[in-house]
Amino acid sequence: MLSKNDVKNIKSLEHKKFRAEKGLFVAEGHKTVLELLDRFSCILLIATQNWLDSNKKISAERIEAVSADELKHASLLRNPQDVLAIFRIPKKEAKLSEIAQSNLVLALDDVQDPGNLGTIIRLADWFGIKDVFCSKATADIYNPKAVQATMGALSRVSVHYTDLKQSIKELSYDIPVYGTFLEGEIIYDARLSANGVIIMGNEGNGITPEIKQSVTHKLYIPNWPQGAPTSESLNVAIATAIVCSEFRRRKL
Amino acid sequence: MLSKNDVKNIKSLEHKKFRAEKGLFVAEGHKTVLELLDRFSCILLIATQNWLDSNKKISAERIEAVSADELKHASLLRNPQDVLAIFRIPKKEAKLSEIAQSNLVLALDDVQDPGNLGTIIRLADWFGIKDVFCSKATADIYNPKAVQATMGALSRVSVHYTDLKQSIKELSYDIPVYGTFLEGEIIYDARLSANGVIIMGNEGNGITPEIKQSVTHKLYIPNWPQGAPTSESLNVAIATAIVCSEFRRRKL
Repeated sequence: MLSKNDVKNIKSLEHKKFRAEKGLFVAEGHKTVLELLDRFSCILLIATQNWLDSNKKISAERIEAVSADELKHASLLRNPQDVLAIFRIPKKEAKLSEIAQSNLVLALDDVQDPGNLGTIIRLADWFGIKDVFCSKATADIYNPKAVQATMGALSRVSVHYTDLKQSIKELSYDIPVYGTFLEGEIIYDARLSANGVIIMGNEGNGITPEIKQSVTHKLYIPNWPQGAPTSESLNVAIATAIVCSEFRRRKL
Repeated sequence: MLSKNDVKNIKSLEHKKFRAEKGLFVAEGHKTVLELLDRFSCILLIATQNWLDSNKKISAERIEAVSADELKHASLLRNPQDVLAIFRIPKKEAKLSEIAQSNLVLALDDVQDPGNLGTIIRLADWFGIKDVFCSKATADIYNPKAVQATMGALSRVSVHYTDLKQSIKELSYDIPVYGTFLEGEIIYDARLSANGVIIMGNEGNGITPEIKQSVTHKLYIPNWPQGAPTSESLNVAIATAIVCSEFRRRKL
């Protein structure tokens, strides 16, 4: 059975402050929870008896069968699912300068919308990008909406929060740093490397001036037909998708 | 001044039923409203005096200066903006079979999330796709969240609701119909035409079986490295972006 305290604990994890204090986050939904169980340690899993009956091999510190109503009551989402779990936020340090030596890395410079962030993690997973570095002002990947948008990709992609300006300054001179700008080279014509950093900027303001200075390769996703009247820009997750697809398309 | 009735009218337009009955929709935010004023007829525009002072050339059947608080009260969004407008939903018929003869067209087969839909319209605009046909079960583009996600692209892209199965059946045999499937040809290697229909499916279920039968060219966006463990699929707006970028990249 779920105590009042359990529900209170779950609800508190809607807020970044409590997630940080407790080092815990909530994930919901069959696919997401099953995938995250592979990677994160789970301190409480609540599910309908039905779900538990068809998922017997799960392991968690505590498992509770609850009614659909209890689940709905505990859920942080508008559309409650048949399973909800509390996981520990992993603590691990990673250095952008080391990882970008031999891997392609995404760096998010103040991406604010949790849905965009989650969607970016999901597509990073698709394109084999194992590490995403986020500025501290970027949305929290452990926000329930962000977790849901990842669709379980968090089990394969590591998300690191860092002083991004500093991390980029520390990169060795031979590591390419890519970003998209209106004045960039058409991405379809550009030489794209198998390692380095792809910076994606904030939804409204793009890449911050200080980080822009460190970009060694400016890219541009042209609209079609080029120069026709169109939107001012693409959504950041959309732009990230097109950029990642271009980096990977030639290296199948 | 805004009457109680005005606010009630605005609030009613949060619901599809009332939008359909009244033939009206609401848009909010500087950029979106300004762009939509170019294309749609506006029956009421409310804005702060500040906004009106710096946007003198707008035309609407009725314009009201209101306080930020009044705007907040009337807004359908979580983050109210400094301008809100009620527009007429255009009534016009368009035939997929005619438009797809000489243009590239997107067809949405039950895309359910208004944010995904709006994002798709915005990227269609970027890639010069002027017409998007939606099945009747697709989210309503005049939903406030969808309108916002388009970022004004609705002023350049026409969205048509239709019996999609029927419309696709009526296509002439020489019109290519594309869709993405796990068993499709790698999109990076495929020959892609300058006209035809690109079908994008529902978030959970993909393309409906009946429509799948009409697909003449099955495409696949490979993950990287191919065959590595990854997410089951890409978000529908993300997949649409990559497909559209591929169709246009060779024809700049």
